[in-house]
Amino acid sequence: MTQPDFSQRLHGIIPPVVTPLKPDFTVDESALRRVIRHLLDSGVHGLFLLGSTSEVVFMDAPARREVLRIAVDEVAGRVPLLAGVIDPTTDRVIAHARDALAAGVDGLVVTAPFYTRTSQAEIAEHFRAIRVAVDLPIMAYDIPVCVNVKLERSTLKQLRREGLIEGLKDSSGDDTNFRLLARECAEDPDFRLFTGSELMVDTAFLVGAHGCVPGLGNVDPAAYVALYDAAMREDWTEARRLQERLIRVFNIVFQGTPRTSAGASGVGGFKTALKLLGIIEHHHMHRPNLPLNDEETVRVAEILRAEGLLPAQERKLVPGV
Amino acid sequence: MTQPDFSQRLHGIIPPVVTPLKPDFTVDESALRRVIRHLLDSGVHGLFLLGSTSEVVFMDAPARREVLRIAVDEVAGRVPLLAGVIDPTTDRVIAHARDALAAGVDGLVVTAPFYTRTSQAEIAEHFRAIRVAVDLPIMAYDIPVCVNVKLERSTLKQLRREGLIEGLKDSSGDDTNFRLLARECAEDPDFRLFTGSELMVDTAFLVGAHGCVPGLGNVDPAAYVALYDAAMREDWTEARRLQERLIRVFNIVFQGTPRTSAGASGVGGFKTALKLLGIIEHHHMHRPNLPLNDEETVRVAEILRAEGLLPAQERKLVPGV
Amino acid sequence: MTQPDFSQRLHGIIPPVVTPLKPDFTVDESALRRVIRHLLDSGVHGLFLLGSTSEVVFMDAPARREVLRIAVDEVAGRVPLLAGVIDPTTDRVIAHARDALAAGVDGLVVTAPFYTRTSQAEIAEHFRAIRVAVDLPIMAYDIPVCVNVKLERSTLKQLRREGLIEGLKDSSGDDTNFRLLARECAEDPDFRLFTGSELMVDTAFLVGAHGCVPGLGNVDPAAYVALYDAAMREDWTEARRLQERLIRVFNIVFQGTPRTSAGASGVGGFKTALKLLGIIEHHHMHRPNLPLNDEETVRVAEILRAEGLLPAQERKLVPGV
Amino acid sequence: MTQPDFSQRLHGIIPPVVTPLKPDFTVDESALRRVIRHLLDSGVHGLFLLGSTSEVVFMDAPARREVLRIAVDEVAGRVPLLAGVIDPTTDRVIAHARDALAAGVDGLVVTAPFYTRTSQAEIAEHFRAIRVAVDLPIMAYDIPVCVNVKLERSTLKQLRREGLIEGLKDSSGDDTNFRLLARECAEDPDFRLFTGSELMVDTAFLVGAHGCVPGLGNVDPAAYVALYDAAMREDWTEARRLQERLIRVFNIVFQGTPRTSAGASGVGGFKTALKLLGIIEHHHMHRPNLPLNDEETVRVAEILRAEGLLPAQERKLVPGV
Repeated sequence: MTQPDFSQRLHGIIPPVVTPLKPDFTVDESALRRVIRHLLDSGVHGLFLLGSTSEVVFMDAPARREVLRIAVDEVAGRVPLLAGVIDPTTDRVIAHARDALAAGVDGLVVTAPFYTRTSQAEIAEHFRAIRVAVDLPIMAYDIPVCVNVKLERSTLKQLRREGLIEGLKDSSGDDTNFRLLARECAEDPDFRLFTGSELMVDTAFLVGAHGCVPGLGNVDPAAYVALYDAAMREDWTEARRLQERLIRVFNIVFQGTPRTSAGASGVGGFKTALKLLGIIEHHHMHRPNLPLNDEETVRVAEILRAEGLLPAQERKLVPGV
Repeated sequence: MTQPDFSQRLHGIIPPVVTPLKPDFTVDESALRRVIRHLLDSGVHGLFLLGSTSEVVFMDAPARREVLRIAVDEVAGRVPLLAGVIDPTTDRVIAHARDALAAGVDGLVVTAPFYTRTSQAEIAEHFRAIRVAVDLPIMAYDIPVCVNVKLERSTLKQLRREGLIEGLKDSSGDDTNFRLLARECAEDPDFRLFTGSELMVDTAFLVGAHGCVPGLGNVDPAAYVALYDAAMREDWTEARRLQERLIRVFNIVFQGTPRTSAGASGVGGFKTALKLLGIIEHHHMHRPNLPLNDEETVRVAEILRAEGLLPAQERKLVPGV
Repeated sequence: MTQPDFSQRLHGIIPPVVTPLKPDFTVDESALRRVIRHLLDSGVHGLFLLGSTSEVVFMDAPARREVLRIAVDEVAGRVPLLAGVIDPTTDRVIAHARDALAAGVDGLVVTAPFYTRTSQAEIAEHFRAIRVAVDLPIMAYDIPVCVNVKLERSTLKQLRREGLIEGLKDSSGDDTNFRLLARECAEDPDFRLFTGSELMVDTAFLVGAHGCVPGLGNVDPAAYVALYDAAMREDWTEARRLQERLIRVFNIVFQGTPRTSAGASGVGGFKTALKLLGIIEHHHMHRPNLPLNDEETVRVAEILRAEGLLPAQERKLVPGV
Repeated sequence: MTQPDFSQRLHGIIPPVVTPLKPDFTVDESALRRVIRHLLDSGVHGLFLLGSTSEVVFMDAPARREVLRIAVDEVAGRVPLLAGVIDPTTDRVIAHARDALAAGVDGLVVTAPFYTRTSQAEIAEHFRAIRVAVDLPIMAYDIPVCVNVKLERSTLKQLRREGLIEGLKDSSGDDTNFRLLARECAEDPDFRLFTGSELMVDTAFLVGAHGCVPGLGNVDPAAYVALYDAAMREDWTEARRLQERLIRVFNIVFQGTPRTSAGASGVGGFKTALKLLGIIEHHHMHRPNLPLNDEETVRVAEILRAEGLLPAQERKLVPGV
């Protein structure tokens, strides 16, 4: 069954929170708390912990529990908190889901199985088994670039009809399909449709999205919140202006390549920006990803500075002050 | 450094052992022991536990340890035993590798990271970190259909030169690339090249493979061993004859589709055959995969019967007995 | 050099005109003239002859010349007329381009080479050779689904900088890339960016498109013109309303599948609609494409009727008349 | 109906003949005659004109007729002569097929339609229409990398059953599928199965191929003929030895990349080798492909020299002689 209360609370900007690490690759609790406060202070409407941007598949169960413990405590019910329960197969996902339920989150985010190759019918079975096992609302997560299979519109329709999912986070990059999906989902007023895009957020709202899960929202949450507000009052020109700014900021994700993978350059770029902003201490990711080097970090700083996210003149460059 | 002793022992037919399950999805120890004895009795040259065919990504760490405990005990050193340590990222793989070392296996089988997208340089870093952490020979596992990235020839060359891997299991299905790889690897006499193909094994040996890891080897290990023997004495006509038989037997993997995924139909087909052969009790896989139904099971039986793997006349068809 | 006059004239709705055929597969001149008048009467801003929707690759040089002769005569300079010069390789394209110049068109539409596989550098060489050979403005045509290669942003930038192309028709379906392209092209105020999408036209204008080349524009040109007008006055709510209508009409392209290919169902759907609208006589395409059958035609009619493009009640259903 | 006489004549090594060009891009008749004599003198069993290696899609109808006129005259019936009739759509292919029939070739080579996207049913319709229009045996040509669609086994089975095709040239690079195809086609003793691979020819014969269409056969036809002879007497060790030699020679196709496309580097490599061998005068291809430069040409020469195809010591390097 869909849960109207949950659905109604679920809207707007819900960033996938990065997981700051200590040098020994354990979770940096104080840094994570600072990231969360930074997001809440900017007015975000919810938080998504343990998503791809959180490096979830790099973490074992204890580390994941630690992240949720910190987040639930820090958020203290002020906004809805979603937890990714991402691992290759059904029963391993259920184990994570039980941990998430125990931690006190408000909903789960579930991908199709991966590594193993499943049919659309088996994907439906996967969602069915998880929903039966753990009584929490589920947001399906369509991310074919990671799991190598598409959540087809017909599968999503079946999951909606059976009441197995309350929403969808679409990170497929197929904007036409997203629009057709928005039209189909409009028949169910409680269903929530979120885009995972950072760059097509104004247009996603124009075609019917209820919210957005932008990785870049870690770095510039206020601009995404303002974009959402503009979209809600149908001021598309202002929404576009804010989106254009965020497209410029998004260039921080390309500074590591081709030395690193796109993934390490992207999440690494967010972490590097948060370090430059003074919010986290270390910008490295889990192994085998390599951190941005000094030269790449300078370029990230220049991008942030150009958009006013860092002061135009760095204090340390002014001698004698 | 490569380990000549290990490499010299590593050759021939090394089936990826299926993991029989009890109705509650736990490992069926007695059935697993029977599968292993069935394989050893047929003369296989090694065993690969916890591979894709073993449903490794469906199992948590305790289940994986259980499988290795049983296998090490049952094999008792008679043949080399390889353990897959397959999970998305480096440190999680290292944790499995430590378990495998503790269990007493002879070598590890390691894929590229998955779900997360890594560059070839980061893949090399992945192998480097694992090798440093756990002192066991490593066979790289190229399976792009599961991990969505290719172990490129240049990456494999680098790993060989650094002494990080002792062999390769190629499940890429790219036979031309396999041949070019065989030519390159021939410069290092201790390096072991295995094909994961069930259908191109005679040609793989013709172009220089040292061994084969056939899922179908669970069902008809004797034919694969005979094929290997023919290839070693360069009797390619006999090798082809045996391969042709195995191509006919391989039809058991197609009986579940399109009702199930290819994966569920394939491993499910092996398990169904082993149940029909009286070696295991239950033929289901982990969730969300659906088991072959009665009609599909009948077709599997017909294929086995046509090749003499089951008696031509079923006992139950003889009335009055 | 870009040609400001041409560029300034090139904007808005420029449908890719279908090519009506007689039963013997030759061009139906009177039907083609009716299609063109239908489009001009609806206020379209230009016409694109001999595109994919025109079945260009099914036609030899004489048939292509015939289409251009008819179109140039019927349009009589009222709107800009673009001609596709689509064939696999450079010199064959140049031969078509000379025919198009002789026919009196205003500009060419040029894809990357196909069947043969070329590098981005060779694609640039292709455009260079065509531009040198024939003095007409060129709109590059990015349609990877047909030519199996992407016109990369860096290649397009080079072509723009060398003054080899005056615009781009993007039929790649990658809306994020389209937006980034729009940002880059904005540095050259004479460059014209068109989308080939039928379903993301409001959002394409929002992100900076100058025009649209919608196949569905053959059927409902007035709605696309109204959508363009709404976008130009930045009335995005009205633009979206019109786009939503066109999404419903677009369902006519899916009525032939899976009996036919998507291509035959799509262009066949446009032709079937034009026949139902009384504009053309025959709805078949060139071989090997199969025409929509009676049942599929009824479904197309129902869609048109639901949107008011056909009268709600068919005359023949009124007895006694 | 299959034509036993044709089929029985069709076997062995049938190289796809390169098309030597004069500086003005017209066919170099005397060079083409020398290439053909070079091949016939080496004992090849047939010739394939106007294939991908012949740059067929770069040539208009008159140039194609010219090539066939020369080839038919030079071959004078000594071996079967196949003509590619390669263009995007059915009626254009039929026009080429009529030219080929008039020229006096023995059979046609036909791909699936391209640029336009067709279903498997429409592909069958394509072959049906061509066969009805022109009374010549047809070899289907599976080359998905160029036409972007696979000739599926089920489609080929239907075409065989209807008697529309007498053979298949497989350039798909999918060796497992090739083997399964060989098993299916064995039920029709007159059907001829050819591989387009240069590197997996021994294994192709081992699994049941009747012949091979190697582009590299332009350069070293004698080695391919010897490989075929070894395969026919089931001497697989010798077949492999010859294949290994040809794999080394095949390195000539990689010398142009990444400066040029793989296609220009491959066919350009063959042409460069033929020029070094003194058989043709010019090594350039049609536009937009760029010719190999001097440095790349030196590397091609070194490869040929290492395999004894060029004298070990170049005369010009011996001063005073």
